[in-house]
Amino acid sequence: MASGVTGTVGVIGGGQLARMAHQAAIDLGVDLCVLTPDADAPAVRAGARHIPGSADRYEDLLRLAACCDVVTLEHELTPPELLERLAQEGHRVAPGARAASLGRDKAKARAVLAPHGVPTAPWTMASDSRELEAFGDEVGWPLVVKRPSGGYDGRGVWDLHGQEEARAAFEGIDGPLLAEARISFTHELAVMVVRGHDGETRVYPPFETVQVDGQCHEVFTPASVSADADREARRLAVAVAHLVELVGVMAVELFVTADGLLLNELAVRPHNSGHLTIEACPTSQFENHLRAVLGLPLGATDLEVPAAAMVNVVGSMDGRDPLEHLAPALAVPRARVHAYQKSARPGRKIGHITATGPTLDEARSTAARAASALSTAVPA
Amino acid sequence: MASGVTGTVGVIGGGQLARMAHQAAIDLGVDLCVLTPDADAPAVRAGARHIPGSADRYEDLLRLAACCDVVTLEHELTPPELLERLAQEGHRVAPGARAASLGRDKAKARAVLAPHGVPTAPWTMASDSRELEAFGDEVGWPLVVKRPSGGYDGRGVWDLHGQEEARAAFEGIDGPLLAEARISFTHELAVMVVRGHDGETRVYPPFETVQVDGQCHEVFTPASVSADADREARRLAVAVAHLVELVGVMAVELFVTADGLLLNELAVRPHNSGHLTIEACPTSQFENHLRAVLGLPLGATDLEVPAAAMVNVVGSMDGRDPLEHLAPALAVPRARVHAYQKSARPGRKIGHITATGPTLDEARSTAARAASALSTAVPA
Repeated sequence: MASGVTGTVGVIGGGQLARMAHQAAIDLGVDLCVLTPDADAPAVRAGARHIPGSADRYEDLLRLAACCDVVTLEHELTPPELLERLAQEGHRVAPGARAASLGRDKAKARAVLAPHGVPTAPWTMASDSRELEAFGDEVGWPLVVKRPSGGYDGRGVWDLHGQEEARAAFEGIDGPLLAEARISFTHELAVMVVRGHDGETRVYPPFETVQVDGQCHEVFTPASVSADADREARRLAVAVAHLVELVGVMAVELFVTADGLLLNELAVRPHNSGHLTIEACPTSQFENHLRAVLGLPLGATDLEVPAAAMVNVVGSMDGRDPLEHLAPALAVPRARVHAYQKSARPGRKIGHITATGPTLDEARSTAARAASALSTAVPA
Repeated sequence: MASGVTGTVGVIGGGQLARMAHQAAIDLGVDLCVLTPDADAPAVRAGARHIPGSADRYEDLLRLAACCDVVTLEHELTPPELLERLAQEGHRVAPGARAASLGRDKAKARAVLAPHGVPTAPWTMASDSRELEAFGDEVGWPLVVKRPSGGYDGRGVWDLHGQEEARAAFEGIDGPLLAEARISFTHELAVMVVRGHDGETRVYPPFETVQVDGQCHEVFTPASVSADADREARRLAVAVAHLVELVGVMAVELFVTADGLLLNELAVRPHNSGHLTIEACPTSQFENHLRAVLGLPLGATDLEVPAAAMVNVVGSMDGRDPLEHLAPALAVPRARVHAYQKSARPGRKIGHITATGPTLDEARSTAARAASALSTAVPA
């Protein structure tokens, strides 16, 4: 044996999530293959084996499956029926088609989870503007309207402030829209949970998330919520993991309101909200994802430090790459820089910074200072 | 720019040190090239770019230098004159030829450091057995005899218990031997220190090392030495870093004796003793090595956890690969497994386990339990 082989994992997608999974795979002695059309994708740059191809072409998925022991995913671009077909042809797929389809289809997820007592804001599927108007008049304006699948980082999500906007909502849009009452919340949480083939689950502490323009800007823990909300968030995340028959890691995004917790979104894969697990927990979300899909024992998910914070680094509006000038960020003591080697298009996530610390204030301030050092650095 | 490029680092060698440096390089958005004849070397398996070739062939070193911004090393196999020549031809080499030559030649290091007050056990260079006998009679038997360069993990080091053994010492050996009085010590320490191009240094807390048969078995921190010894160990490491004109990370190995500290060995590169910096410190030895050789700001080196311990995983005497069966080790809560994807020859280091914990006892016990789970796992 030339390797101490635990297995080879195939990832559909080669972005930063696959890149950080590759780092975790190195620790475990696991090989990673990534299916992506992009030879310069972040995971390929990090040295994962590149299988060129598309997430929605079955022949390409088959080529990925042929070179690994289990197929997993880092995004929602693969039609679940293709995952189902892979599984039927004898390939291991984790998370399975059911979990993946619920991660991809917000309406389906709500319909499946609601009967089991997973609370959401009032919602409906509207096929035309009349149905939208009726729903808005019933639950109150504004409404939050979402494409049922395909949106992320605020794309595919927008607000409607009344009947006039509702009448224009379907312009250029094919198919129904998911409409929700815009509820007022005090906090947004993301709870990372991992579940194995055998149904064992481990849940990370709830992470508080701060969105800017619909995109995750900052994540920190401990979340500034009550002990009751903390407990209920963990309970809901574990319940959802079982209901979707998760294998791997998922993010359960929640609103904290005066009346309790409401489900916001699911991401059935490692998630931006969980990056701080790399530094703050004994087992990162990426390592636990690999352990789960390979059928290995799950790792500990507790917080090992008093506090941790993460801030995303995004491409500047002037097209400049903040990461070209790392030095000022590295000079901030205890800031940990993660650079994805992506081209710095405006608003695109190209890296993140994590800081741990003795207090939440200190961790947040360290991460913010390093992020700000990058964005104010003068290009050479 | 397609990448947020900080630079490309070329490593002479592709073993586990280069493998872990590659993981750190991914965080920084740095590309790593490794020069090794072995297409299955641990760093190549992890995805570092492979430059096939030998550490002691100048043409191969030139090919490495051509594809990177700075050349560094993970072992002592390159003749320092070749590094010198690379530098003279305009390639950046870090650590430089002086530091590398002192890391390679134990006698030269002692001769250079002694005048600056770096204490060692009484030593001599003996060209024949008569000189060995005279030295043994002077300082007392047994002597520890070492090849001046090329030895590691207990190879190239042996004891002589008297005149009879001294007379046989040069059989089959060409050139002089370094002989030392075998001193009695209470502890062995390794102090990792990093120094930048500008002479800035950062020192990690002293790590206590436990050798079995001359090979590092366990490393832990805090070391069980007095505050005075701790302080003096850090002071000596920093002094040595300046004296050898280090750029990068080095290990300064020390004996703690009733009469104070004595220098044992230098390793002018990342080192097995420093693996626990990955989990226990804000900046790992690997990331700090990359930062130093690239001229980036150095990172914090303090201990972030109350205690940490590392145990090496070596190939079993029956040739079995303990890492083929990871599950029992991963089931030990809070044990972090690092698998190198090396073939498991008896006694060869093929991985390591690190544990952090609230107390030293707990960290050591967690690491030892996980290591023992691997070595007692039943092969499938």
